[in-house]
Amino acid sequence: MAVELYHFWSSVCSVRCRMALEEKGVSWTSRYIDLFKFDQMEPSYLAINPDGLVPTLVHDGAPVRESTVINEYIDAAFEGPKLVPTDPLEQARMREFVRKCEDGFDAIVKLTMVKYILPKLKNRWSIEELTKQAARRPLKYYQDVHSRAVRGEITENELAKSRETIEDLLDYLERVLDRGPWIVGIQFTLADIAMAPYMFRLSALGADQFWSHNRRPKVNEWYARLSARPAFRTAVSWPDESGGGYEEVGLKASTTAERPDV
Amino acid sequence: MAVELYHFWSSVCSVRCRMALEEKGVSWTSRYIDLFKFDQMEPSYLAINPDGLVPTLVHDGAPVRESTVINEYIDAAFEGPKLVPTDPLEQARMREFVRKCEDGFDAIVKLTMVKYILPKLKNRWSIEELTKQAARRPLKYYQDVHSRAVRGEITENELAKSRETIEDLLDYLERVLDRGPWIVGIQFTLADIAMAPYMFRLSALGADQFWSHNRRPKVNEWYARLSARPAFRTAVSWPDESGGGYEEVGLKASTTAERPDV
Repeated sequence: MAVELYHFWSSVCSVRCRMALEEKGVSWTSRYIDLFKFDQMEPSYLAINPDGLVPTLVHDGAPVRESTVINEYIDAAFEGPKLVPTDPLEQARMREFVRKCEDGFDAIVKLTMVKYILPKLKNRWSIEELTKQAARRPLKYYQDVHSRAVRGEITENELAKSRETIEDLLDYLERVLDRGPWIVGIQFTLADIAMAPYMFRLSALGADQFWSHNRRPKVNEWYARLSARPAFRTAVSWPDESGGGYEEVGLKASTTAERPDV
Repeated sequence: MAVELYHFWSSVCSVRCRMALEEKGVSWTSRYIDLFKFDQMEPSYLAINPDGLVPTLVHDGAPVRESTVINEYIDAAFEGPKLVPTDPLEQARMREFVRKCEDGFDAIVKLTMVKYILPKLKNRWSIEELTKQAARRPLKYYQDVHSRAVRGEITENELAKSRETIEDLLDYLERVLDRGPWIVGIQFTLADIAMAPYMFRLSALGADQFWSHNRRPKVNEWYARLSARPAFRTAVSWPDESGGGYEEVGLKASTTAERPDV
């Protein structure tokens, strides 16, 4: 049984799927798609993922796309600890939360693009090249966000709205954690995994004050539990396989100077 | 076992859940939320759906929100024909499609609001009242769309982009129907149900030329099969329980004069 994950070190959605595979104890082969070299727009990759997005899971030759869909697939198709509750109502609680997370995805994309990815891309490529690559994105949504980011057109107002969306999502998380220790309750599920890389990215952006003990105590404690899981650490600290020398900064102390300011 | 659905006649997401309940043969009680009277912002409704959205399914007192989450719940919790495949890969195909559908939701919301709902609301309420009600929406997304629609600020460009999004979604549907007769293949699933009300709403907006036999033949044939299902007809022709006298026009012939032009 061949299990391959097409993924990239710093991709939020790649983190989700690496974490699910590690939690289940599935053996998998890494197929590295270097987003900083625009590998995701190569015809060979578009053949399995026409939207040019990472990750894609390929299981015995069959591709599965979209991190939340992939993670439901991983739980259904492989042995290992169950990450989807068996009780239908708990399943619904899990999927309600995952859905809320997805509603915050645009906010994470914009903050990540402007504050985290673009500075790295600009170190490597000219504005002309980045503009050309943005136009090659198969999905209009990414064409728009990337080309506007490159042109410096994502406004402070948009970023402020993105931060508000994240704060609303964290408020929601604080409320649902009433039933803790995990998002659905006793069981660690795909809902916790869906949120994990957002926390980590926000952490890398120096925004972990959003869940300081004073501001959101339940999120604070939940994140401490989450980030202690070995699968989390493997998922978020995946090396840049292209040897670009990048390293996630979200695991370092919050005083690290290299963190951009969200 | 009490099964209650809080819903509204013309709500796209309400159609999805009515259709799933009917396909499963579940007995359910209608709890009518009149969106044209802003019932969705009453404290009693916000207690079970803090976002002020319809539908909500309440099963033995436990609320489940979000139409796609509700429909997975309906399939898992009740007897009747399975609407989620048992094979994990087919499950993934179903959820990939549902996810694509959700990506088109903003387009449907904007077209519906401007072309279908707003003219009806303006017949009943002053601009001042509509502006006040838009500001009461709990979610910023709906605050924004509704208040801009009321002020006439949803641009032609935005509506053109929405139509493009819908055309892309229909192209995707045409491609996945290669494995027909249904979206996942042999089995009728929640993917077909997720798309159903979009088709119906587009039909009501006079846009059924998008899937004429010449333009998208597979979608054309799939929609003929879909709209012949009794559950579809029950779901889409739900009466306006408030006696407002509204009636869905999507089931009538495409020459009906009362259809707005999308």
